[in-house]
Amino acid sequence: MPPSANGSSTENKADFKAVETTPINSRNPYQPVPDFLSNVNSFKIIESTLREGEQFANAFFDTAKKIEIAKALDDFGVDYIELTSPAASEQSRADCEAICKLGLKAKILTHIRCHMDDARIAVETGVDGVDVVIGTSSFLREHSHGKDMAYIHKTAIEVIEFVKSKNIEIRFSSEDSFRSDLVDLLSIYQAVDKVGVNRVGIADTVGCASPRQVYDLIRTLRGVVSCDIETHFHNDTGCAIANAYCALEAGATHIDTSVLGIGERNGITPLGGLMARMVVAAPDYVKSKYKLHKLKELENLVAEAVEVNIPFNNYITGFCAFTHKAGIHAKAILNNPSTYEIINPADFGITRYVHFASRLTGWNAIKSRVEQLNLDMTDAQCKECTAKIKQLADIRPLNVDDVDSIIRQYHLNIKTGGNTPLLTGLDAPVNSVDAMAVDGEPAAKRLKQDPSADAARCC
Amino acid sequence: MPPSANGSSTENKADFKAVETTPINSRNPYQPVPDFLSNVNSFKIIESTLREGEQFANAFFDTAKKIEIAKALDDFGVDYIELTSPAASEQSRADCEAICKLGLKAKILTHIRCHMDDARIAVETGVDGVDVVIGTSSFLREHSHGKDMAYIHKTAIEVIEFVKSKNIEIRFSSEDSFRSDLVDLLSIYQAVDKVGVNRVGIADTVGCASPRQVYDLIRTLRGVVSCDIETHFHNDTGCAIANAYCALEAGATHIDTSVLGIGERNGITPLGGLMARMVVAAPDYVKSKYKLHKLKELENLVAEAVEVNIPFNNYITGFCAFTHKAGIHAKAILNNPSTYEIINPADFGITRYVHFASRLTGWNAIKSRVEQLNLDMTDAQCKECTAKIKQLADIRPLNVDDVDSIIRQYHLNIKTGGNTPLLTGLDAPVNSVDAMAVDGEPAAKRLKQDPSADAARCC
Repeated sequence: MPPSANGSSTENKADFKAVETTPINSRNPYQPVPDFLSNVNSFKIIESTLREGEQFANAFFDTAKKIEIAKALDDFGVDYIELTSPAASEQSRADCEAICKLGLKAKILTHIRCHMDDARIAVETGVDGVDVVIGTSSFLREHSHGKDMAYIHKTAIEVIEFVKSKNIEIRFSSEDSFRSDLVDLLSIYQAVDKVGVNRVGIADTVGCASPRQVYDLIRTLRGVVSCDIETHFHNDTGCAIANAYCALEAGATHIDTSVLGIGERNGITPLGGLMARMVVAAPDYVKSKYKLHKLKELENLVAEAVEVNIPFNNYITGFCAFTHKAGIHAKAILNNPSTYEIINPADFGITRYVHFASRLTGWNAIKSRVEQLNLDMTDAQCKECTAKIKQLADIRPLNVDDVDSIIRQYHLNIKTGGNTPLLTGLDAPVNSVDAMAVDGEPAAKRLKQDPSADAARCC
Repeated sequence: MPPSANGSSTENKADFKAVETTPINSRNPYQPVPDFLSNVNSFKIIESTLREGEQFANAFFDTAKKIEIAKALDDFGVDYIELTSPAASEQSRADCEAICKLGLKAKILTHIRCHMDDARIAVETGVDGVDVVIGTSSFLREHSHGKDMAYIHKTAIEVIEFVKSKNIEIRFSSEDSFRSDLVDLLSIYQAVDKVGVNRVGIADTVGCASPRQVYDLIRTLRGVVSCDIETHFHNDTGCAIANAYCALEAGATHIDTSVLGIGERNGITPLGGLMARMVVAAPDYVKSKYKLHKLKELENLVAEAVEVNIPFNNYITGFCAFTHKAGIHAKAILNNPSTYEIINPADFGITRYVHFASRLTGWNAIKSRVEQLNLDMTDAQCKECTAKIKQLADIRPLNVDDVDSIIRQYHLNIKTGGNTPLLTGLDAPVNSVDAMAVDGEPAAKRLKQDPSADAARCC
């Protein structure tokens, strides 16, 4: 199929039809056999940008910003919004009350220490649920709160029964679950399940867990409790998204996220990254439940509030997430985007970009560009022109305008029989720094600054 | 243990001794039982910044930059350095030859299409090995090269035998392995193993694979071939590090990485992220083999070359990877860093930071700051001072200087019996934007711009 000249996202959608009607999963011999434990198709999100996210180094959310973020999360479609403990500070308490009064579709939770003092304050704020947490690893029992498991049992039951008596949802979570003793863990979860907790939580507080460990622990826990299972994964060792996925495979019901993953240290499972994973694994569920095209706006809102840049390699919304460069990639993408894309950018309101201004380009990408420029060239001419472009791209970085000029001059030379140099200023090789300075705006910069430039899109 | 006043990394090291002599794994009931298949303790890295990384949207490496990066990778300790195909362009070929002549400890590979034309060029460059790849999924067979499995078999054998005849290492990889037919895959791998290929490669070219899928496929393959198994994971759905780890658990021997993960789209398993995962899983192996303290320099080199910022949440080297903010986190970290850190920052030449200028702070963090400032205050006074800091931090963002001023003024008031306001300019609540503008440099910005400021370190 020839690429469209205008590169609109509607075209992207059309290109993807074949993939959507024949789910990729059905062709994959290694997709796990459907498992009755799995909640991959029915998970819920507990969005913690306003709790875990507030623990991010740069975060200071005033009331107005918290409300703006809460509304945006609600609009996106998250199931729960978790807020900082009202015991943290007077303003935290007031903000919690204010957000509860917004009348959002999402349920509002607050996150407190497993302590009656905190619980008494929490139940007065108007929240739909309280998330209780206490450290259970020997590290935290020894160096944080200093309590033993008997104390934890007793206090947990007291707090749970108190919160339940107020008709408010209650979750009990251990902290640092993956460095806690297994028998301690199962024993406390069994006890709180018996007194009717709504959810138990497993938290990889230090980010040490690996996917198969997570699967094993959640699967074991699934056999011990009948309530829901929430999971919380830090990303110190790069497994926060994968661990969330494996937890769902093993029967977890709820995943904690934050926008861009912001939280203590380098954060937790990012909402956007989880969407990337889940839209591939459970496309119908995810697309029907979440407003995916609002992801970028939501991320920009939070990034601005905490004064960070969207990482260059961010899932889905990073500037190059749908940029294809190598010749063989470009060729195949031009034929059928699903060759090198597992996610349809149009689902997120984003368009793909085929990079053709580099030494790695191929003649298919150049041919597609020639067609966009409405020039008349044979395949053989496109191939010769590509060879010349690669030759020039070996000497210095080229931008889209450079390549367009080369193509136009090559075309003019053919039509007029002329022999004008294809690109001026290239008689003597220049080093890349000079070339960039002379040029003002190299291809790389241009792409970063203006990823949506129409001129730069092929399909 | 009281925090050290100077916050040097030597102190960090001392704090961590307890953890190092009692490996965390031994306390963890969910660490997988040691498996004879696992290569977690003996993996090798094929570093592909100069191949996959060159396919990153922003990458243009001239010869000098390629050489600089190759030397830095070699110094870091990677096993292999993979280079762009010499068939891509004339300069690519020349650069390949130049890097082969550097006499690095790392073996030099180049990455080519499964085609005799490319193989003939590759073996003349002086490389130690050739990585051959061909698409095997129906997507790529149909829309990319258009060849069937019989053709792939025939060409693969021809290329392998030719490269072997030159006494050069050879790897054969499928592309898009996780969307290829299982029987096709195992059949071609068995065939190339029989003719003596050094490695077979499994590539998640589109980033669709999940950890348990990876484990299953690699484990199955381990039973089919006797050669080494290399794996290559794209990160579109956030599993590139986790998948690499599960591949090693299942018996893979080699992992492809690039610095900061740069590559097509949002890239592959990042070298730094893999180090984060592996230093936790196999600390002795990783620390003895790789110069971890050079990671930051290496990442800065590549980030500058491709004109990107280090992501705020980057593994290990992100500005907040070792920043602790919530009161209970800070308290425990001050007692024992291993409570909330699974990685010792000192191993990477980095120091941790305990954030104490926020509404989430606790009195332990403030007490530690009081001690650093050499002030004499009782615990009760530290608690009262903390309450006042939290009150002010509710109104506007505070920076380190603000909190130091508050503490000093509070201390002065105690000693002199005075009642001077703790912070000027806070008589009327100001909104955060104004406060930041008046202030010039809020805590957040300060932290980002100068994470190494001595004043800001607690331990």
